[in-house]
Amino acid sequence: MPSPPRLLTLADLSVPQIKRLLTHSASLKNNTLPWLSTHGSLSFKRASDLSLPSQSLFGKSIALLFSKRSTRTRVAAESSTVLLGGRAVFLGREDIQLGVNESLRDTTRIVGGMCDGIFARVGDHSEIEEIAKYSPVPVVNALSSLWHPTQVLATLLTLHEHANAFGETPTDTTLKRFSSKDFLPELPSLTIAYVGDSANVFHDMLVTFPRLGHKLRVATPGGREGRYGAPTAVWDRVVELECDKNDGLWWGTDPKEAVHGADVVITDTWISMGQEAEAAQRYKDFEGFQVTEELCRAGGANPGWKFMHCLPRKQNEVDDEVFYGPRSLAFQEGDNRKWTTMAVFDAVFGHWDLDGDRWLTKQPNNEGAAENA
Amino acid sequence: MPSPPRLLTLADLSVPQIKRLLTHSASLKNNTLPWLSTHGSLSFKRASDLSLPSQSLFGKSIALLFSKRSTRTRVAAESSTVLLGGRAVFLGREDIQLGVNESLRDTTRIVGGMCDGIFARVGDHSEIEEIAKYSPVPVVNALSSLWHPTQVLATLLTLHEHANAFGETPTDTTLKRFSSKDFLPELPSLTIAYVGDSANVFHDMLVTFPRLGHKLRVATPGGREGRYGAPTAVWDRVVELECDKNDGLWWGTDPKEAVHGADVVITDTWISMGQEAEAAQRYKDFEGFQVTEELCRAGGANPGWKFMHCLPRKQNEVDDEVFYGPRSLAFQEGDNRKWTTMAVFDAVFGHWDLDGDRWLTKQPNNEGAAENA
Amino acid sequence: MPSPPRLLTLADLSVPQIKRLLTHSASLKNNTLPWLSTHGSLSFKRASDLSLPSQSLFGKSIALLFSKRSTRTRVAAESSTVLLGGRAVFLGREDIQLGVNESLRDTTRIVGGMCDGIFARVGDHSEIEEIAKYSPVPVVNALSSLWHPTQVLATLLTLHEHANAFGETPTDTTLKRFSSKDFLPELPSLTIAYVGDSANVFHDMLVTFPRLGHKLRVATPGGREGRYGAPTAVWDRVVELECDKNDGLWWGTDPKEAVHGADVVITDTWISMGQEAEAAQRYKDFEGFQVTEELCRAGGANPGWKFMHCLPRKQNEVDDEVFYGPRSLAFQEGDNRKWTTMAVFDAVFGHWDLDGDRWLTKQPNNEGAAENA
Repeated sequence: MPSPPRLLTLADLSVPQIKRLLTHSASLKNNTLPWLSTHGSLSFKRASDLSLPSQSLFGKSIALLFSKRSTRTRVAAESSTVLLGGRAVFLGREDIQLGVNESLRDTTRIVGGMCDGIFARVGDHSEIEEIAKYSPVPVVNALSSLWHPTQVLATLLTLHEHANAFGETPTDTTLKRFSSKDFLPELPSLTIAYVGDSANVFHDMLVTFPRLGHKLRVATPGGREGRYGAPTAVWDRVVELECDKNDGLWWGTDPKEAVHGADVVITDTWISMGQEAEAAQRYKDFEGFQVTEELCRAGGANPGWKFMHCLPRKQNEVDDEVFYGPRSLAFQEGDNRKWTTMAVFDAVFGHWDLDGDRWLTKQPNNEGAAENA
Repeated sequence: MPSPPRLLTLADLSVPQIKRLLTHSASLKNNTLPWLSTHGSLSFKRASDLSLPSQSLFGKSIALLFSKRSTRTRVAAESSTVLLGGRAVFLGREDIQLGVNESLRDTTRIVGGMCDGIFARVGDHSEIEEIAKYSPVPVVNALSSLWHPTQVLATLLTLHEHANAFGETPTDTTLKRFSSKDFLPELPSLTIAYVGDSANVFHDMLVTFPRLGHKLRVATPGGREGRYGAPTAVWDRVVELECDKNDGLWWGTDPKEAVHGADVVITDTWISMGQEAEAAQRYKDFEGFQVTEELCRAGGANPGWKFMHCLPRKQNEVDDEVFYGPRSLAFQEGDNRKWTTMAVFDAVFGHWDLDGDRWLTKQPNNEGAAENA
Repeated sequence: MPSPPRLLTLADLSVPQIKRLLTHSASLKNNTLPWLSTHGSLSFKRASDLSLPSQSLFGKSIALLFSKRSTRTRVAAESSTVLLGGRAVFLGREDIQLGVNESLRDTTRIVGGMCDGIFARVGDHSEIEEIAKYSPVPVVNALSSLWHPTQVLATLLTLHEHANAFGETPTDTTLKRFSSKDFLPELPSLTIAYVGDSANVFHDMLVTFPRLGHKLRVATPGGREGRYGAPTAVWDRVVELECDKNDGLWWGTDPKEAVHGADVVITDTWISMGQEAEAAQRYKDFEGFQVTEELCRAGGANPGWKFMHCLPRKQNEVDDEVFYGPRSLAFQEGDNRKWTTMAVFDAVFGHWDLDGDRWLTKQPNNEGAAENA
């Protein structure tokens, strides 16, 4: 038996792997949404004649080993597992023996012996590494101190869906089914600004956006080597993947400079879970970093700039005008957490296959339709 | 796309809508119970040839956004969602970001973007109104400070099933399947006494029982305009629906007077969740309100009077003799939480249809049988 | 309707009933594992042509009424319920009214009225007895102060799978399907040593191993009638089932003596949930009870002795060398929690049948294959 696949950060994936996951996400979304929106007009029998999404998790249990609160990541996992025919088993801090009566190693081995995949939200990144080491089944990182890979896949799918905002023909994902050889149409090369704290979501952007041909412009207080810069473990992967080369990455201290020419402006919370004690200091250090119309005008963003945020959002980071306005793609990005998580679960937990050899060649159920599309 | 239906109180429903939901509840119960009681003697294939209940939630996720403890409402939601083919995702206070890191508006939009319905148990009623405002999917009130609509549907279904206790031919729900044009046979006009606090469950009785032709006799300490009377927001709906007209409603302060001529006597807890600090005062104010044989004899209830309670029950409100005796329909009412919730979920989450145009015309699977019934 | 079956301890089962449950566990495991390990290469339609496990819980909800933390028991219940087509509804202390607002009797009646089975983890054993008294649906003990029946079934299945370690031909469970008349091949008569506290898991060994022809050698500080000996309620069942007769049971105070001639050495935590306050005293009393290579060499265990533990494990009870070494079957035993729980749920919740009349005669789906095997 091959060793089970792991997805701890997008740095673990090649560019084709990332593109296949995005393609699969779009395909699952566009096949499933019409199916769901029939609003129950189908009897069970007729439903099974329809184009069901992949049932690769049928009869399977996916453990959600979550040591931190979660809304998006959890609901994305639960709702997409249902669609794949399986069952997410939420195991929170209060419910299991972990950390009270049992080591992470033993809990991992036991949970992995009865479930068919582990989706783990941990504190320190070393915990997810330990889980991946001892689990007999595939492991996906649902957020760690260093990385948050499933979030950035949702960011990318959302950018694809709004390609027209950047002067491109929008990807007609409503009509197209993608065959095994296809990728989603290429995005134009975008300038993406990130202003805020160097946290887990941003780290996955760092190792991904430049490899996909986008320019990443970053401002953190103190810059890359300052207090809010990238940890060594992250920067090593950036260098290894050459994401700091070829003008792919600019990193300064001034948010205005960062948004210069930006097609997309992204931020994140200034105070991640566990950093509540540093709140006062952080609010002070991040003064001037709030994303507003004025900041982007002053900095010279592309007039049609879009805003993204992984949520939950606080007003400090972005004002209401931007966040609830037409520039914001934050909620669309939230919706896409479901479809990208579904693609990851189908690939990793359902097929043990991150290359798409098995899941992209065969469309769910109506294979004929997919081949001919 | 039509805007998603909402069910925040039975005051939102017309009399025919309420009757159709009750009819559908009886139909689902009577079709599903025999199916379940085969005790697993069926292989999967043969099972799918049987008369499965509607699978309108197949592949769907229903968010249970619960900020308060729940036994009945939660188990009813979980077990009926399974029967409809879907998955209830329980999101308690401890698990998600709501109230800690994120606004109700944002959480609602996100959860509604990934789930196919929201069933929310909140504190203040304004919260469920805000959820209904921002949710892209249907919302059902699972209890708020003002209303508890799904409970009162269970009360009504139970009264139908025990119509013979009130001198009527019992509804032969075991044999009958109801077609789209049918309703459950009419109940006789009952005299229903409510003695206790004016709380959410009772409020839904106030806006429903008189409209269905029953007389509601109420006693609260201090009466309708006293401390334990109806809040203005509730009373406005009572007046709007003319539930205070045509002898439909009598409201005094004496429990004995209230039970006069009663076919059914109902009470509820004197101390709702969140009112624990007022306990001593409330026990004092509700002295003499305990439902007992003696109270009902003294007040002149119909000798065959039945007792109902939404549970959980404390001994203060009703003594053991009544609560565990043959007059009590409290547990049958509890059982019916499942079937009435199932009807509501099928209608609201499965079919986006509160009028029964889609779910009553076509019976699940064996449509022929239903048409000909 | 027959009264629902209950499984509160293995003492409630006859030897043939235990053997049939073990046989069914092996059969479910060996039919289901290949099915799961296809890694999602099947579309939904083709999957349903395969040899699905029994779908006896299809559409059904099993309540997990857990007042204590649980990892193994819970995950075993959740993952096996999914495989049987049903849904486990986890109701923890924080979620429901039990113990806050409602009596155990009322909660049991309500939960049992909406769910199709109750799997309960309680404190004092009287609680599970009360649940069994008032539940309208089958009840299985998921751990009480006195008993832990589902754990010992996993111990036994694991011993069967490793029969070759004890000089026997291993049970070829990979190939064999068992027909209704068959049992798993007999295990040789083993000498099983238990050194540690007389707790719930051990109690189910006491009433089971001697009846199955194994010799149980026990050491507890102070012996059988000492502080760490069996409670009267347990010892009464031991005597009633004659498990103390025919050399079936030796009980002393010296761990070395206990492991003499042992094929299997078993221990458990010295400090069960709720005994945290006694920790210091217990560590002192159990000095010398840690299972190590040295202890077993000094005591004269069978050189090929195997180690088992119900987990979670602390280092006091067994050192790393034994626990993580080749003698340890602890994690295999953990894996088998799933398959034995699945057999119990299929029998008790799915078929209301502890004798195997209904579930062993008909193999899931491909009945022909099973009959001819």
